[in-house]
Amino acid sequence: MTAEMTRPELGVCYYPEQWPEAQWADDARRMRELGLDWVRVGEFAWSMIEPAPGRFEWDWLDRAIDVLGAAGLKVIMSTPTAAPPRWLVDKHPEILPVGPDGNVRKFGSRRHYCFSSPVFRGEAARIAEAVAERYGTHEHVAAWQIDNEYGDHDTIHSYSPAARDAFRDWLARRYGDIGALNTAWGTSFWSMRYDDFAQIELPNQMVEEPTPTQLTDFLRFSSDQVQSFNRMQAEILRKHAPGRAITHNFMNQNEDFDHHAVGADLDVASWDAYPLGNLVHGRLPEADKQRLLRHGDPDQPGFNHDLYRGVGNGRMWVMEQQPGPVNWADANPAPADGMVRLWTWLAHAHGCEMVSYFRWRQAPFAQEQFHTGLLLPDSTPDRAFAEIEEVVAEAAALPALPPRAPSEVALVLDYPSRWALSALPQGRNFRAGHHALDWYSALRRLGIDVDIVGQHTELNGYRLVVAPDLVMADAGFIKRIAASDTKAIFGPRSGSRTEAMHVTAPLPGAGLAPLIELRVTRVESLPDWHSESFLMGNASHAARRWRETIESDAEVLATFEGAYREGTPALVGNDRARYLATLPGDEGLRHVLEDTLRWAGVDTLPDLGPDLRLTRRGNVTFAFNFGCEPAAAPAPPEATFHLGAARIPPAGVAAWSET
Amino acid sequence: MTAEMTRPELGVCYYPEQWPEAQWADDARRMRELGLDWVRVGEFAWSMIEPAPGRFEWDWLDRAIDVLGAAGLKVIMSTPTAAPPRWLVDKHPEILPVGPDGNVRKFGSRRHYCFSSPVFRGEAARIAEAVAERYGTHEHVAAWQIDNEYGDHDTIHSYSPAARDAFRDWLARRYGDIGALNTAWGTSFWSMRYDDFAQIELPNQMVEEPTPTQLTDFLRFSSDQVQSFNRMQAEILRKHAPGRAITHNFMNQNEDFDHHAVGADLDVASWDAYPLGNLVHGRLPEADKQRLLRHGDPDQPGFNHDLYRGVGNGRMWVMEQQPGPVNWADANPAPADGMVRLWTWLAHAHGCEMVSYFRWRQAPFAQEQFHTGLLLPDSTPDRAFAEIEEVVAEAAALPALPPRAPSEVALVLDYPSRWALSALPQGRNFRAGHHALDWYSALRRLGIDVDIVGQHTELNGYRLVVAPDLVMADAGFIKRIAASDTKAIFGPRSGSRTEAMHVTAPLPGAGLAPLIELRVTRVESLPDWHSESFLMGNASHAARRWRETIESDAEVLATFEGAYREGTPALVGNDRARYLATLPGDEGLRHVLEDTLRWAGVDTLPDLGPDLRLTRRGNVTFAFNFGCEPAAAPAPPEATFHLGAARIPPAGVAAWSET
Amino acid sequence: MTAEMTRPELGVCYYPEQWPEAQWADDARRMRELGLDWVRVGEFAWSMIEPAPGRFEWDWLDRAIDVLGAAGLKVIMSTPTAAPPRWLVDKHPEILPVGPDGNVRKFGSRRHYCFSSPVFRGEAARIAEAVAERYGTHEHVAAWQIDNEYGDHDTIHSYSPAARDAFRDWLARRYGDIGALNTAWGTSFWSMRYDDFAQIELPNQMVEEPTPTQLTDFLRFSSDQVQSFNRMQAEILRKHAPGRAITHNFMNQNEDFDHHAVGADLDVASWDAYPLGNLVHGRLPEADKQRLLRHGDPDQPGFNHDLYRGVGNGRMWVMEQQPGPVNWADANPAPADGMVRLWTWLAHAHGCEMVSYFRWRQAPFAQEQFHTGLLLPDSTPDRAFAEIEEVVAEAAALPALPPRAPSEVALVLDYPSRWALSALPQGRNFRAGHHALDWYSALRRLGIDVDIVGQHTELNGYRLVVAPDLVMADAGFIKRIAASDTKAIFGPRSGSRTEAMHVTAPLPGAGLAPLIELRVTRVESLPDWHSESFLMGNASHAARRWRETIESDAEVLATFEGAYREGTPALVGNDRARYLATLPGDEGLRHVLEDTLRWAGVDTLPDLGPDLRLTRRGNVTFAFNFGCEPAAAPAPPEATFHLGAARIPPAGVAAWSET
Repeated sequence: MTAEMTRPELGVCYYPEQWPEAQWADDARRMRELGLDWVRVGEFAWSMIEPAPGRFEWDWLDRAIDVLGAAGLKVIMSTPTAAPPRWLVDKHPEILPVGPDGNVRKFGSRRHYCFSSPVFRGEAARIAEAVAERYGTHEHVAAWQIDNEYGDHDTIHSYSPAARDAFRDWLARRYGDIGALNTAWGTSFWSMRYDDFAQIELPNQMVEEPTPTQLTDFLRFSSDQVQSFNRMQAEILRKHAPGRAITHNFMNQNEDFDHHAVGADLDVASWDAYPLGNLVHGRLPEADKQRLLRHGDPDQPGFNHDLYRGVGNGRMWVMEQQPGPVNWADANPAPADGMVRLWTWLAHAHGCEMVSYFRWRQAPFAQEQFHTGLLLPDSTPDRAFAEIEEVVAEAAALPALPPRAPSEVALVLDYPSRWALSALPQGRNFRAGHHALDWYSALRRLGIDVDIVGQHTELNGYRLVVAPDLVMADAGFIKRIAASDTKAIFGPRSGSRTEAMHVTAPLPGAGLAPLIELRVTRVESLPDWHSESFLMGNASHAARRWRETIESDAEVLATFEGAYREGTPALVGNDRARYLATLPGDEGLRHVLEDTLRWAGVDTLPDLGPDLRLTRRGNVTFAFNFGCEPAAAPAPPEATFHLGAARIPPAGVAAWSET
Repeated sequence: MTAEMTRPELGVCYYPEQWPEAQWADDARRMRELGLDWVRVGEFAWSMIEPAPGRFEWDWLDRAIDVLGAAGLKVIMSTPTAAPPRWLVDKHPEILPVGPDGNVRKFGSRRHYCFSSPVFRGEAARIAEAVAERYGTHEHVAAWQIDNEYGDHDTIHSYSPAARDAFRDWLARRYGDIGALNTAWGTSFWSMRYDDFAQIELPNQMVEEPTPTQLTDFLRFSSDQVQSFNRMQAEILRKHAPGRAITHNFMNQNEDFDHHAVGADLDVASWDAYPLGNLVHGRLPEADKQRLLRHGDPDQPGFNHDLYRGVGNGRMWVMEQQPGPVNWADANPAPADGMVRLWTWLAHAHGCEMVSYFRWRQAPFAQEQFHTGLLLPDSTPDRAFAEIEEVVAEAAALPALPPRAPSEVALVLDYPSRWALSALPQGRNFRAGHHALDWYSALRRLGIDVDIVGQHTELNGYRLVVAPDLVMADAGFIKRIAASDTKAIFGPRSGSRTEAMHVTAPLPGAGLAPLIELRVTRVESLPDWHSESFLMGNASHAARRWRETIESDAEVLATFEGAYREGTPALVGNDRARYLATLPGDEGLRHVLEDTLRWAGVDTLPDLGPDLRLTRRGNVTFAFNFGCEPAAAPAPPEATFHLGAARIPPAGVAAWSET
Repeated sequence: MTAEMTRPELGVCYYPEQWPEAQWADDARRMRELGLDWVRVGEFAWSMIEPAPGRFEWDWLDRAIDVLGAAGLKVIMSTPTAAPPRWLVDKHPEILPVGPDGNVRKFGSRRHYCFSSPVFRGEAARIAEAVAERYGTHEHVAAWQIDNEYGDHDTIHSYSPAARDAFRDWLARRYGDIGALNTAWGTSFWSMRYDDFAQIELPNQMVEEPTPTQLTDFLRFSSDQVQSFNRMQAEILRKHAPGRAITHNFMNQNEDFDHHAVGADLDVASWDAYPLGNLVHGRLPEADKQRLLRHGDPDQPGFNHDLYRGVGNGRMWVMEQQPGPVNWADANPAPADGMVRLWTWLAHAHGCEMVSYFRWRQAPFAQEQFHTGLLLPDSTPDRAFAEIEEVVAEAAALPALPPRAPSEVALVLDYPSRWALSALPQGRNFRAGHHALDWYSALRRLGIDVDIVGQHTELNGYRLVVAPDLVMADAGFIKRIAASDTKAIFGPRSGSRTEAMHVTAPLPGAGLAPLIELRVTRVESLPDWHSESFLMGNASHAARRWRETIESDAEVLATFEGAYREGTPALVGNDRARYLATLPGDEGLRHVLEDTLRWAGVDTLPDLGPDLRLTRRGNVTFAFNFGCEPAAAPAPPEATFHLGAARIPPAGVAAWSET
């Protein structure tokens, strides 16, 4: 795979260890006949590979890979560290993670390891090296996945003795001497002063919240543990599997570690796309959830495509695509017929190189027996099978497309800022992940393609940077914007905290200087049962959950209404940057961003409405109808349709070129 | 007591140890004057009987039994194992149960024992034998209760070392070798393979859910522990108390152990009836709860009468009947005046031999001081006293009635299926206990008498078997239906799992073959805020919470409506059985069942409405008005009324013969 | 400070240890220039005073006090026991409290001590004595605060081994022999008998609730531990700081210990006033919360002023007044501009001698960085600064006022009764703290000034005692009322339990004899989704949550309506006392109390509505408009206005004399 013109590639997740060997060849043949190119194996196979300490059984896996490869499939091999065997737990019970309640979390499912356990790190390196040595240069193994879904089941924050010791070491490295820690943590506050790093404990089971600096340090530390664990494995794979793409399958929107940082050690970022469970648990009001129950949030998958395309430095796969109902959400509805095809094309349009479905065949046993696959347990095709056939046929007719070009608009997702918000939410209803998706959604309804970036990203060419929650604005990033032609808009709380989790001096908002000067003199969190409003032009919009009183020499572009401090600024801006002092509802957010896009010289479309989304790749425009009613594709009369037509049915896709 | 024609007998729960001995004789006299026949004693008296290890104080209890017996009361003596003394906990702290949080649950209330503790089993046998030896053939002791309310306070699932060891032994017996367990548990799934039974842990405090087979095995094991504990005591009683009826007082609708299995070791099943707390915590929508606040769910007591009549192989008592407000629900309203009488007659109509009220006198101290009795704490009569007087007077006028004849309709409650649903609910709002009560209610509104049975039950004579949630259909049971003239209707998920908690092969639904052939190709759990519909004849009905896509050669009797897979079958049937692929609302369920009853040759009445219920015993028809408005008894003009009249007031009862 | 005519004094909480020493003098100067009289310091300074065991660093604190004193401020010095240093935890980890889950609660915030730890009591005495010796007679130290906010972070109920041992000793002292405990706890109930005090455990992690007597004993014990801990420090201060006022800053409405009892060892009771968080978490319906979001519950601060005025035997301060948004509530809105002034005058009107704001400058680090102060982090004035300037200017124009005269009406808050309700709530929605505030609110809407008293209080002169929830009526108190001219009204559950937490004999309500004779023959708790009604005169009012059936020879003043027991008494009374058998809604409660006030000879005003409140001090009437619309001051035409005018704007204050 290169950065050249590509057609969509497809794959599937397969578990030879779960099926009789006699079935493998037929499975492989059918995968290939369906049009699949890739197959992922091995991520939970440790106890089958090494059934006893040091005793390896490679034969079955050799044969499985041979069978798959012989059928013409490229294999994504995995390091099996996400599920350590029982014998390892017996030998080293200290590898188990410890929950915030102080209890050791038991063997019997998966991810039962503490990232800080030196024993487990050694064992993980050992098994990764063994697998990499065996298959690193195997002719059929074309790529590698490290571990599986970091962060699943809340396993990143462990409160084990190993984590405590590692945290103390990490703090000693970060602060050098204990006095610096005392200053950063503000231990003069409640007589919390430490004399030695060895006195420091993990921030669970305290009488009351610890200092937010202790909390954010623990969150940083925990993220660093994931990063170094992943890097250790990546280095092993680079040594033994030269030229193979290395990836990890991220969980969408998990915020427990810095995805940008982990992505820097990978060749491709992949992610696991389960839109319907995300709808059920997600940000939308109930009426929208009802309408979209079988279609999902129109912006959640696109947001993640755009995020992981950035995390992968331009290269992104979907490693696990939901093929039907799943097993883990509070309610598990079925996708509308057609949605698997829609999601596949959506991924392609957002620059995804490969979409792999989870899983080939529904398992009739164990934890995920309600998780569907491409085949039913009796090996007959489930619905997604037919939709993939359709995609394969359509793909043949679609022109090969270049990688996604950079967008004009970049949205910033900064993990340390999210940790800051987690450490000091200041309101129970402040959910930064939801708010950022709201901002993204507003841009997408205006027809804008978006890149999602970190503060380390180059600005080269962006007309507008959109930062909904950049609490810990990095001075270098702000300076780079100031030195560029890029304009920026910041959401409330941006630039309000230093890296040490102190209020920026002199006042919150100072972190955005010199781009824009402002003083936040008051912040409020507001309950869900209360709403305020602000006036922009002649339009009054809802202001919810958060409101700031700001002072700034910048121009006032919108003002608060109502009995409390009427006329104070809700939106200010100079010629380089804008600052929004509240969280508007959908309509208000669209108004603010439409005005801001125009100011930044970005063309917008009229509001596409809640359910239609456009995405451009190369010279092709894709349109996706997430709604329950047919939609009109906003294509010019002379457009050449590659997929669908001007009338897009519910769960339908259209794609056209204008040349 | 025999299976001959009987009149209602009445009793009361009494605690001589809680009152001055001087009061006993007067209490006994008043019980008898009220018309009570039975008195239960002793179930919490261990520390009074054996105040120190091996030192027994029988005198007080001898005298108490003599006083009660002398007054003409038959005594139900209890084994006092539900409340071990403090000295036993001091001597053997390992008898205490351990909660799912891993913490030992302390002494200071009741049920503080782990069913798996060998020490406690030994001690329980010892005290049971001592009590049985003392009173087994006592002239006044006519029946025995074992322990008290198995399952109360979530004490059946213990996570103690003793439970862990016993679970390992149980698994070793069940599976023989560890390979068989690995296959059943599907440990190839997440590298969960075991080499030895000694590696297996209890399924609490895991990183993520264990395999559902591990969970269902733990639930089976826990149920077996109750069964063997109860059997041990039953055997002791049979040895020392020949000819006395042995019972246990079950808690209504507890699903933590197999009531059928425990009932097989008893002579009579008794249960504890607390309708109002069940209403407050129960299945009904809020508007119904408001209307029925002081009357209770019209179907909850009847359901339990019919269940425990089956558990007791035809013999059923109410051991504890709510006499007024209780102390344990989230809210504790008073029964409407008249309800205690209504519930007593309801029990009689459902075949109950004896209704015992809990308790004689309200206690002015300890945990249950808000629990009312027949007397107030000052020994003046509370309201129920007068209603019992009324029942006694009425009973004299009512003809003696035979035991309940078998009904034409049997509803299946299979405990292993409930454990399967608990292990893999697949949707947070899937509450099988509520759904089964909904089905029962629909039958009862159509005037149908119902038996509630297990899969072991003989079908002899049933026209229709109704199985709302028979997940683990037993092949023998299905074959017996197929070989009989009995027809059957199954709710969704029926026949979908093997005993090993695997999907039935080839697909869910296969467990119902050869009775009916179907393939469930997709299941969905749906959130409460979403509703779908199905069409049956010209009527459109709500489909909630669960929906399946099925394929079957059977006739399609109803189809789903709406945008998703319109026209796929919602109800199918052949000449032997029907399968319903969703959970309808009240109206739809009544439509489905009315049609099915007609098909099975069972006569129905027009819908009795939400609040009126009919029950037949012998040649007498009883009608119960649970509503707030007067109701018309559906009696023929020539009916002879034994109780009440054609106009039944709120909380009123009527009973008539047609001969 | 004396009981003479006084003007409002003002103060502030200051943390010199949190700021550079160079800033102290300027801070002190600005405090004084603003018009502040007092400054509180030191309550979290232990680790700064004693950075290592026995090594004291007084110099910085000497200098800080000197700087503050030199500027003209009176210093309130604190004992720093609320935040033990890390080295003390290292040396004696057993001082940490243990949560109800059995886990030790860790160092890292504050209040990390168990009141029962003898080691900690020794250390607390040692540091208190050291600080008292150093500053007891310091010329600038005019008052002392002991510890800080007893009860914050749920730290009064500790389940440590030390607490267990102390509880056993406390029980041994209370009961003398174990037989008396067995009787009181009713251990005959579930075989719970004890042979020795050493067998008794703390009431956490039990299988089911312990006896309510065990629970109330544990709550009494825990309160006693606080009382003795506080007294120990008070005695040290009295020895070393003669003539200085000793106080503790109570948390509003905390019920975990007996505030009257602790207050008896103080010279002044102070409390911490955070009205907006209390609104968010408080009793009012959502519509009221929306309207009052930035104004707070109009009765919550007044209730606490009146309570702590009683706790302080007439002397009351506000030690921490919310100056803007805070950091700890579920949502943290800003006070409307003007509210800080309003709350300050409200305190003065209720007899408060001094209002101290928390805190001088907002901290840019540590846990409370979102808690505002008088200054922003950059030392520029926040909004409250200007409002205090206004108060200072107004105070100069206001006549000096005498202490608050006793009111005609006393409302009883009895802590043991609250513990009884906590031990046996009998309904999940029974929130005595909310109900008492409802009663207070009804009185205040009728223009009544209220004293809040304990059962120990002298009745001298009260026309009416109002007891919303006097579960454990003290016989001496009831007799004192009976022997006086004072009339009384009691809410439901009053007089229903003995000190041993038994039902009063013969029936609940007997505890009010001989004042009023009644028999409560039935109690019910009702769910929130249900409402009943009662009739008083021609008016029908809602009856919620609780309903009793009572028998009494007293006159029936209101009766229940509806299908259940229509016509039974809802309110009865003789010429000395009344008893209300339910919890009315606002309107019904006002009707009952208006009628009762008239009966008791107390003049009322027409309903002031939900948002206007009147308070009288000396010959001045203050009016406070908590609403969003202007209100008319109910002042006579000839009134002389000292503050404001006849039209009171939202968040406005008026004060006038009629002479």
